[in-house]
Order: sequence, then C-alpha cells, then structure tokens
Amino acid sequence: MQEQQYEFDLDYESAHVKEILLQEDMEAFRENFLSYPLYDQTQIYLSLEQEDRIRMYHYLSPKEMSDMFEILEEDVESIEVYLMEMNKQYAADMLADMYTDNAVDMLQQLPEEVIPTYLRLMDREQASQIRDIIDYDDETAGAIMTTEFISLKANQTVRSAMALLKSKSSEAEMIYYLYIINNENQLVGVLSLRDLIMSHEDSMISDIMSDRVVTVNVDDDQEDVAHVARDYDFLAMPVVDENNILLGIITVDDILDVMHEEATSDYSGLAAVDVDETTSNPFKAAGKRLPWLITLLFLGMGTSSLISNYEGLISEAAILSVFVTLITGTAGNAGTQSLAVAVRKIGQPESEKRNWMAMLTQETMTGLISGVVTGLAITLVVGIWQNNFILGGIIGFSMLSAITVANLAGSLIPILMDKIGFDPAVASGPFISTFSDLTSVLIYFNIAKYFIENVL
Amino acid sequence: MQEQQYEFDLDYESAHVKEILLQEDMEAFRENFLSYPLYDQTQIYLSLEQEDRIRMYHYLSPKEMSDMFEILEEDVESIEVYLMEMNKQYAADMLADMYTDNAVDMLQQLPEEVIPTYLRLMDREQASQIRDIIDYDDETAGAIMTTEFISLKANQTVRSAMALLKSKSSEAEMIYYLYIINNENQLVGVLSLRDLIMSHEDSMISDIMSDRVVTVNVDDDQEDVAHVARDYDFLAMPVVDENNILLGIITVDDILDVMHEEATSDYSGLAAVDVDETTSNPFKAAGKRLPWLITLLFLGMGTSSLISNYEGLISEAAILSVFVTLITGTAGNAGTQSLAVAVRKIGQPESEKRNWMAMLTQETMTGLISGVVTGLAITLVVGIWQNNFILGGIIGFSMLSAITVANLAGSLIPILMDKIGFDPAVASGPFISTFSDLTSVLIYFNIAKYFIENVL
Repeated sequence: MQEQQYEFDLDYESAHVKEILLQEDMEAFRENFLSYPLYDQTQIYLSLEQEDRIRMYHYLSPKEMSDMFEILEEDVESIEVYLMEMNKQYAADMLADMYTDNAVDMLQQLPEEVIPTYLRLMDREQASQIRDIIDYDDETAGAIMTTEFISLKANQTVRSAMALLKSKSSEAEMIYYLYIINNENQLVGVLSLRDLIMSHEDSMISDIMSDRVVTVNVDDDQEDVAHVARDYDFLAMPVVDENNILLGIITVDDILDVMHEEATSDYSGLAAVDVDETTSNPFKAAGKRLPWLITLLFLGMGTSSLISNYEGLISEAAILSVFVTLITGTAGNAGTQSLAVAVRKIGQPESEKRNWMAMLTQETMTGLISGVVTGLAITLVVGIWQNNFILGGIIGFSMLSAITVANLAGSLIPILMDKIGFDPAVASGPFISTFSDLTSVLIYFNIAKYFIENVL
Repeated sequence: MQEQQYEFDLDYESAHVKEILLQEDMEAFRENFLSYPLYDQTQIYLSLEQEDRIRMYHYLSPKEMSDMFEILEEDVESIEVYLMEMNKQYAADMLADMYTDNAVDMLQQLPEEVIPTYLRLMDREQASQIRDIIDYDDETAGAIMTTEFISLKANQTVRSAMALLKSKSSEAEMIYYLYIINNENQLVGVLSLRDLIMSHEDSMISDIMSDRVVTVNVDDDQEDVAHVARDYDFLAMPVVDENNILLGIITVDDILDVMHEEATSDYSGLAAVDVDETTSNPFKAAGKRLPWLITLLFLGMGTSSLISNYEGLISEAAILSVFVTLITGTAGNAGTQSLAVAVRKIGQPESEKRNWMAMLTQETMTGLISGVVTGLAITLVVGIWQNNFILGGIIGFSMLSAITVANLAGSLIPILMDKIGFDPAVASGPFISTFSDLTSVLIYFNIAKYFIENVL
C-alpha cells in the first residue's frame, strides 16, 4: 500500500506514458494512463508529440477524452490543432460528451465557419443545447452555465430520488445539489445531496427541500454571479429566466475561473498591460505593451505643450522646475488610490453599489484632507530646505489643489466610463496618472505665476 | 406552490423578522427565520439591534447560530461585540459547533487574552483541535484547513461506507469527497461521493478508490493551494504532513476566499491603498492612505533635490523642463507594466515560476524594444514641433534609456523583495513610478548636459 505522497513529475511521467504508447499495448496504456488525476492526464497529453496524441485517440474513448478536455478548456490556445488532428466524428462525439458550458467554450475558440461541421455530426438534442448556450452574451450567467443538472419533482420520495440520482449521476456535471421543478419547469425548491442522504427513505421531497431558492438570472453579469456564490458559499447556482424557469446551473469551478479572470483583468487594467502575457519573446511582449505606452505618450505631450506655455516663467525662476515631478507624482499617486477604490466599488453587485454622488463627495473630501496634510508637510520641508517659505507655500498650496483634483478625477473617470458602458478597469492606472500630470501642471504654474506676479 | 423567483429584500425581511421577534412566539420565529438561506439569515441578524439579537440567542440553538457564523466570518469587523453579548457558555458552544477553520478565524479576531476563556468552556477534543489549527502559520494550508472530513478504510465495502457516511454526515464540512487512510492515518486513496453512489453496494473501497491522490502540504502557501484547486477543479483538497498523514481538508469556499483576498491584496498593492476600504468617513480614509502618500512624497523629494542640481542648466535652456514629466511619466508607465507582469509571475506556484535571470533579461529586452519605438516616435514629434532635431534626439535617447532602466527596475525590485521575504505586491506601483522618476531625471539631465556641453 502506498505510503508516500503522490508527486507528479511531468517529464518523468510523460516519458513513461510515451514508452507505453510505443509498445502499442492498449490495455497497459489504459490501465496506467487513466489512473492519473485528470489534470495530470491533460498535462501529459499536452506534452506529447502529435503522433503520440493520435495514438491516444485510438486507445481512449471520446468520453474519456472529453473528461480531459473539460479541465483543459481555459488554458489552451490551440484547441483547433487538437480537434483537427482527430477524426471529425471522434471530435464531435467528444464535444457532445462534454458538459455544455465547456463544449461551448471550446467551440468558441474555433474559427466560426467550422463550428457547424461538428454540430451536424452530433445528435440533435446535444447540438441544440450547445446552440442555445452559444447565443447567450459573453460574460453573462447564460454563457457559463451548464444544462447538465439533476431535477426532481416535489411529490417524489427520497427513495425514488436516490434511484433517479444513481441513474442520472454519470450525465450531470454537479450532483451535489438537486433542483426541484414543477410541471412548467419552474424552480420551486433545492435540496443538497447531504440532506437527501440524511433523510428517511420515505420522506417526501417537498417536506425536506428548501423553497427559498437563491437564483441568478440568465442575463446577469458573470461577476455578479461570482459575488453571490462567494457570499452564499454555494457549490453551484441555479440559473433561471424571468419566469423562474430553470435553465441551467453554474458550478463553482466556473466561479473560480470567473474570479481569476476578473481579478486579472482589473489588475491588468491598473497597469495597462496584460499580466497573463504568456510570451517570452520580448518583441511580442513589447508589441502588446506599446499601444498603451504610445497612447499615453501622446496624452503626456499635452502636459509638455502646457508646460511650454510657461517657458518664460521657468527661465526667470528655474527653481519652479525642481518641484514639477514632485507635484505631478504625488497627485498621480493620490489619484491612483482614489481610482482603485472607485473601480472596486463599481465592481460590486448592484445591491452594494454606492450612490455615485456620495462616492464623488467622499473621494473629494478624502483628497482635500490628504492634500492639506501633504501640502503642510511639503511647505515646511521646502520652506526649510530652500529657506523660502513663500516658495514652500506655493508648492504646498499647489499640491493640496492637485491632490484634490486628482482624487475627484480618480473617482469621476471610472464612474463616467461605467455609465457609458466601458469597463472602468481598462488601462485606468496610467491613464489617471497621465491625466493628473496635466491638471497638476496647470494648477502649479498658474499658482506660481499668480504669486510671482502679484505677491513677490 | 411558489412560481416566482425568491427575491431577498433586506429592509423588508428584517422588519418582518423584528416584528415576529417582538411577538415573543419562538415557534413562529423559528419556522420563519430558519427557512431563509443561511447568508440571508446572517444579513438579517446583522441588521438587527442588540436587544433583538439577544432575543434571537434564546430562540436559536448554538448549533443554529454556528451555521450562520460559518458564513459570516470573513466580513464582520466586530465579532467581539456579538460574542460578548452572548452568554459565555452559549458562545463557547457555538464556537465548538463550528468547523474548526471557521472557529479559528473567529477566535483570531478577538483580543488574545479572551481566547482561553472560550476554549476552557468547550469539550477537551474540540478545544485541542482548535489549538492545533491556531498554531499554524498564517496564510498556510494548515491555517485554512478544517479537521471535519470523512475518512474510510480501504477494506470496507461500499455499503458500510454509505452507512458510515450517513452517521457522520452532519459533522463533516464536506462529504462529497471521502478520504481513505491506513492504520497509520496515512492517506492512501480518494473517492468522490458520486463514484460511491454509482458503485455496487458490495464493491470494496480499495477497488473503486483512486490511489494517485493530489495533496497539499500543511505548510504550503495558501495561494499555491488555490492554484492547485483551480487547476484540478477540486471541491476540496486533502492536507497532509511530510509523512503523508492526513491532517485536514481545505474546502472550495475557503479557496474562493483566498483567491479574493490575494487578488485584492495584489490590486491594493499596485495602487498603494487598501481597496476594500470600508469606511465612508473621509478622515479615516485619508488616514489610511496618507502613510503611503507621505512615504512616496519623501522619495519624490529625492528627485526634486536631484533636479535642483541642474537648476543652472534649466535657467539656460528652460525648454528642457518642458519634457521632464513626459519622460518620467512614460518611463513610469513602462516600469509599472513590467512590475505588474513580474509580480504576477512571482505569484505563480513554484513549478511555473520562471528563472529570475531569464525574467530580468526578457524585461530589459522588452524595455529596450519599447524604448526604441517610443524614443523614435518622440524624436520625430519633438523635432517637428520645436523644429529642433537635436532636442528631439536628446528627448528620444533619454526616453529610450529611461524606459529600459524602468523595465529592468520593474522586474528587479519585486524579485529582490520576494528573495528577502517581502510580498512583492505591497505598494509596488507608486513605488516603481517614484523610483523611476528619480532614474529618469538623472538620465535625462545628464544626457542633456552632455549634448549641450559637447555637441552644441
């Protein structure tokens, strides 16, 4: 009996599997390969050469292959290569054996014109289920749900429900929640498998089910669905239409993927780069980052041309130029803080979303308070350093104003982007810094000019 | 029969529950309240006044209360208030009824000196399980695992396993995976409840279990655990020690919380602000943000004092000051991109982590390529705008150098932070911008000075 931990070493296992494949002993291959955890099977599969993969298609059934592809869908760029090297009917059978949500994910990675080929080779019902899901908008509950769930009637006994469960269990993606529907397919209750197992065999489902069922609507945003799942600690969420008809379920593995995707896109947005950049080719990496850099460069040119209006002032008082980056930098930092908080608040589901007017007021107030503290600090530091408290005052007052404006902009811009239907997280961080450079420079040189012309 | 979707309206339901509470009819209260989904129960509970909550403690058992607190643990700041208003024995019973991981989470939010009070009021076994988990380091698998799992022996039949499952089901946090251990408590197999249900009643567990079990080690970082769970699509992960002895399991609801926590902390770090800032008080918000702003302000002073060395140069050629923010801003943007990619790569589990030398080389190359493109663009633009291609060349060459250095720093700094044991995500974005301001200014004025003194 095994006493050591199972440790998966891809290079070793992959070589081992390849060796067995070359012996052309189907039984030996199946016995070894199918005993790996699914994810490890996929890792081995991906590591093999095409000729070895083609051998595998002869040894594994479309259903066994589909189990692997359920897990692999998110990470592979070249699904097309794998499908193309399979016999077309084998590929179609494999897709039909997959849970609808995953089959759809895979099909959507193919060129649109080849999708019908596979759908035609499937049985009518499977194909129509896939067509239904493909039609839902991206990033909605409908697009990530699966139609393979287990439904019961309220007037069944626990015994008959268990019998149904055993017979349907191999088809369903998730058997740990059972959904109770009426004759119109409306969702009327939910029951966990745990409760089913713990109940007496003669109990009626209607007596043990919970009839306050938390649902998501098929058009709900996937991020809202993830919030609900996390709040309620559910392993699956039922998806209904506006008439409360049960259409599918969303399982927690898809919720994990949604959370990862949204977190990555928010993080990427704040840095104006796709952080899941997989290339190790610097030319490709630069190619992906440059569009943002160049766009921001041209915005930055606005700041430069603004400063050029004050060239005369700077020639007279070159000391002013010493503090430009300090003011733009600090205001940029404050604006980025404000922006990150605002983007996060906007990302909350509707119920938690704050009133936008309150958000703006609060951020402006926060900016004002931060500005007063930072402004006083810098007035003192510059005043002492340069032995010139008027200069200190100019810098401090400019910083106070620039921070307040940056905080206002940091919350206003994502709110506006959200209102007009853009994702407020896109490239937001560098954008707010660059924008805040412009306003800060404008504020700074005007204040400086006013002081120099009127006070000194 | 219900045909409409269940919609939860907190204000309405809360007023309704309060009304029933005031009637002092325990049965009516229990029948109504316990039929809400758990999360909605907690929302109602949190919305009530203290006197109403105290009434609830008389109507609900510690076990029923514990079900609510299982869900609530992550979001509540003032667990202490709730525990203090309960009878001490009631509170201890409630904690003992919770799954160990959640009970520990709650206890850790209390002042350290009150923890023993509750542990003393529990039965010995529960208290010792809690003590074991409290001792594990924060953010490791051990700290988030629960000890309430179901274990079987390999020489049992499916029938006896089902019987065991029914009797243990109410105590276990997760019954959908069953873990098979030997007489030394070493993990030798795993079986899903789905497979158990589908198997013949006389089958032996050893014949149907999978013996290549994916495990995590009790000392593994919680973020690595989340990666494994997401890759393998598991609802729970077994946690073992170095001798493969099964210590606990980590359930997917905790994985969701870990992912949320890590994503939030990475995002917060990139903006130097806690984005889950819950306060709506601008003074408190400013209080939390100011330490970063002030720290960065003093770093920014370094840049200012550097520029002040070139005051003479600027007086002669004020045009130079026009392009300072453009160069610092663009290099800062490039550095932030590089940093975000590096932080993300460092956050990958060991197996996927890149060689750090390769990462540095790649980022520097990417910086060089981005720098050449951006530099050429700005040389042209400035050359045409100012009708001065020498100035354009100075700006372009400075930008090329500044971007390359920023990209190198953007990957070097998080690698170094990781090496010396800091979280590379902390306040990283503004830090890299501020640092890059310094290097950019140094590069720019030196290049400008060299050209002005030697070329012009």
